[in-house]
Amino acid sequence: MAEDFGEWYRRMLADNNIVDDRYEVKGMLVYRGNGMFMIKQMARYLEDLLEADGHEPTLFPALIPENLLLTESEHIAGFEDQVYWVTQGGKNALERKLALRPTSETCMYTMFALWSRTHQDLPIKVHQTVCVYRCETKQTRPLIRSREIYWNEGHTAFATRQEALANIESIREIYTKLLNGLLCLPIQINERPQWDKFPGAEYTIALETIMPDGRTLQLATIHNLGQHFSKVFNIQFDDDKGEKHYVWQTSYGPGFGRLLAATISVHGDERGMVLPPKVAPVQVVLIPVVYKDSDKESVMGCITGIRDSLKKQGIRVAVDDGPERPGAKYFLWEQRGVPLRIEVGPRDLKEGKAVVVRRDSGEKLSVPLDKLDVQAMFSQIEDNMRTKAQKKFDECQFMPQTLGQFRDSVGKGIVSVGWCEKPECAKPIEEAGTILSLTKESGSCIVCGRAGKVIKVAKTY
Amino acid sequence: MAEDFGEWYRRMLADNNIVDDRYEVKGMLVYRGNGMFMIKQMARYLEDLLEADGHEPTLFPALIPENLLLTESEHIAGFEDQVYWVTQGGKNALERKLALRPTSETCMYTMFALWSRTHQDLPIKVHQTVCVYRCETKQTRPLIRSREIYWNEGHTAFATRQEALANIESIREIYTKLLNGLLCLPIQINERPQWDKFPGAEYTIALETIMPDGRTLQLATIHNLGQHFSKVFNIQFDDDKGEKHYVWQTSYGPGFGRLLAATISVHGDERGMVLPPKVAPVQVVLIPVVYKDSDKESVMGCITGIRDSLKKQGIRVAVDDGPERPGAKYFLWEQRGVPLRIEVGPRDLKEGKAVVVRRDSGEKLSVPLDKLDVQAMFSQIEDNMRTKAQKKFDECQFMPQTLGQFRDSVGKGIVSVGWCEKPECAKPIEEAGTILSLTKESGSCIVCGRAGKVIKVAKTY
Repeated sequence: MAEDFGEWYRRMLADNNIVDDRYEVKGMLVYRGNGMFMIKQMARYLEDLLEADGHEPTLFPALIPENLLLTESEHIAGFEDQVYWVTQGGKNALERKLALRPTSETCMYTMFALWSRTHQDLPIKVHQTVCVYRCETKQTRPLIRSREIYWNEGHTAFATRQEALANIESIREIYTKLLNGLLCLPIQINERPQWDKFPGAEYTIALETIMPDGRTLQLATIHNLGQHFSKVFNIQFDDDKGEKHYVWQTSYGPGFGRLLAATISVHGDERGMVLPPKVAPVQVVLIPVVYKDSDKESVMGCITGIRDSLKKQGIRVAVDDGPERPGAKYFLWEQRGVPLRIEVGPRDLKEGKAVVVRRDSGEKLSVPLDKLDVQAMFSQIEDNMRTKAQKKFDECQFMPQTLGQFRDSVGKGIVSVGWCEKPECAKPIEEAGTILSLTKESGSCIVCGRAGKVIKVAKTY
Repeated sequence: MAEDFGEWYRRMLADNNIVDDRYEVKGMLVYRGNGMFMIKQMARYLEDLLEADGHEPTLFPALIPENLLLTESEHIAGFEDQVYWVTQGGKNALERKLALRPTSETCMYTMFALWSRTHQDLPIKVHQTVCVYRCETKQTRPLIRSREIYWNEGHTAFATRQEALANIESIREIYTKLLNGLLCLPIQINERPQWDKFPGAEYTIALETIMPDGRTLQLATIHNLGQHFSKVFNIQFDDDKGEKHYVWQTSYGPGFGRLLAATISVHGDERGMVLPPKVAPVQVVLIPVVYKDSDKESVMGCITGIRDSLKKQGIRVAVDDGPERPGAKYFLWEQRGVPLRIEVGPRDLKEGKAVVVRRDSGEKLSVPLDKLDVQAMFSQIEDNMRTKAQKKFDECQFMPQTLGQFRDSVGKGIVSVGWCEKPECAKPIEEAGTILSLTKESGSCIVCGRAGKVIKVAKTY
């Protein structure tokens, strides 16, 4: 793109009714019609998958008493700089401070302790779609780094470690369906280094994609909590011999703002957004192409017929019969990312055809009206969007051989190099980017040449 | 019911996986699987109706700076005793206090002022499904009076008062569809007296039902805000001559907790919940009735066939093939309120039939398997639930002729009597109950006999 990615991104959000960042509290976004519509599609899709996998929908309180949040010391240390505190109710000071949830482990697990008595109460698998709050000290960026984060969080308790590990596998699959299946986003799954895991977890795995400017964006995380929280919140169960054990836990969540940011950015082009059909607020726009008044009625009759037939199939359709020239309409709806445009003019009408234009490929087809299969075209569009985005993503994987090449490639995507795990060699690496993960593969250190492990490095959002 | 309604209600919530009120912050509920599932069904249904009516889904911040909340003096006076204040972020005091939204007028309307420039930007119609927070001083009661309230709120801005009035009519219809159509609840729509309107509104209308103990429960309210907020938030638009005008506004919302409380309470009976089919977490339970092991396989084959066929129709089915006696299973699923129970035993199998039992009427039918039309039965169940509940509701309308009769009937339902509008006659009336509305009808005062207006009085939740 000729335009800088940051400018393009801000223009997309503002011009397409996605979000408004002019609210008086900095870092707290207003989600507008098209943005929120897409997020709701994602949320419903994810919730249905989680419930089919045995998760119960729940809603836990947003306010967490200080003593609960302080129960797990590693956890609170990770969040204490970011917590919003409620200290006053009406005109009176509260007896104890209440945290506006930065995440819900400490809130939920006090209840899990009440619910888990015997092995028959397990597993506990719940999810909720809510906002969490973090008083960010870093610079905020719309949808990417906010002080109010709309997400879905899943939380579990199992009788055995094996079940917890199997759950992590299921969630990887569910999140992959959401990110790659629904949103056509290419992703990489990385286990975070120990120093970058979720506070209180045994380990954290992250699903991330690469933005057009080469920086990675973390879209979802999955935490193996082991028995860390169950021991401090005393979540136990009696096995069939009546012996007490602590439960094994996991927690996980994708942020919907980031999913939206990635969907807009990864697929977009110089003409604007290119939206995956399943989440697009308008899936098909119908445009009459009429220059003579005498043709208007018959063309509009045809357009209305197509509209009604598509609506019956549950497809979200808009008809643009405004006074603007067709070219101006094409421009608008292309920027909006509408997957399919269908044009009907007097000649098409005579031939019983319509012109169908794909947003993803620009392809223009003349299709007989009785052969119009929009659902089939949607799945071709999805396949193409997935393939195109994956190709770009694969081109952003680098394996440099020298420190100079390393410095050149960090910032353009995900870079794999060796590292000896010595702090002195971490310094030049971390000056260039962030260590996303430490793999188990061997590789000689890009700084000193000694034997080490392959790490993945990128500039991150 | 032999059991006291309050006891029955608490037992239903606890035993049916609806909510848990043992969280450490009093008045903040944990919504569990079945409760939250039903609320999600209601929310999706309502959101779809609002969006079909032209409302955009949105999400506005939960935190409102003190200066915004203070902008409208009547409004803040109505809420200041109930607002939770965030005063601290991380370890630092915030520069200005942030209110945890008690409602979103002041948050949204600062943005409306940016969005409304010309008449082409109007109408603005948005909705959001979120929690609001009120530090209640009154005693809380699960789902009915909470400190955290899950609701959907709609907000609008129109160029003319007429459009605002037409919108109020549309919302009355939409809410009636939700309450009476989806949830089969009988409702009465009352305009609140001026002293009981929403702070900042011209007037408020309320939709309410009657609970089994005779008290009314307000389920939703609709406010005509006139130009009250647009004048203080400076929400203007240029008409086609370039002249500036203030917009006309409305706001409205039902609370999902109260809808759930009413649905459980109004339809329930001594055996437990009776759930409207469209929101029931389990719509059909299939129970094999087998006493000999040799029959098991063939009966389970039939049950599996019915299950698969119902699932294909999008119906939520459970199969209870546990070791308990059939009677114990019936007891459990009846308490859970499952609309239809289908039993299959060896004899049914031979005849190609199943026994179908309706939860609402207790009716037992032997139905040939190839004639089983569950969707048709659901709509018969809905009709019956609506009719039964309406009958009870109508029996709770009173028109007493003496003050003694008045005192006897208040607390049993909605009581219509005359009132002269003098404060001294309000006293004995308000000792008995709350004035729900002042109608336009004439009626002589129940206290002093002078000419007056008919009012509606009830004990309220």
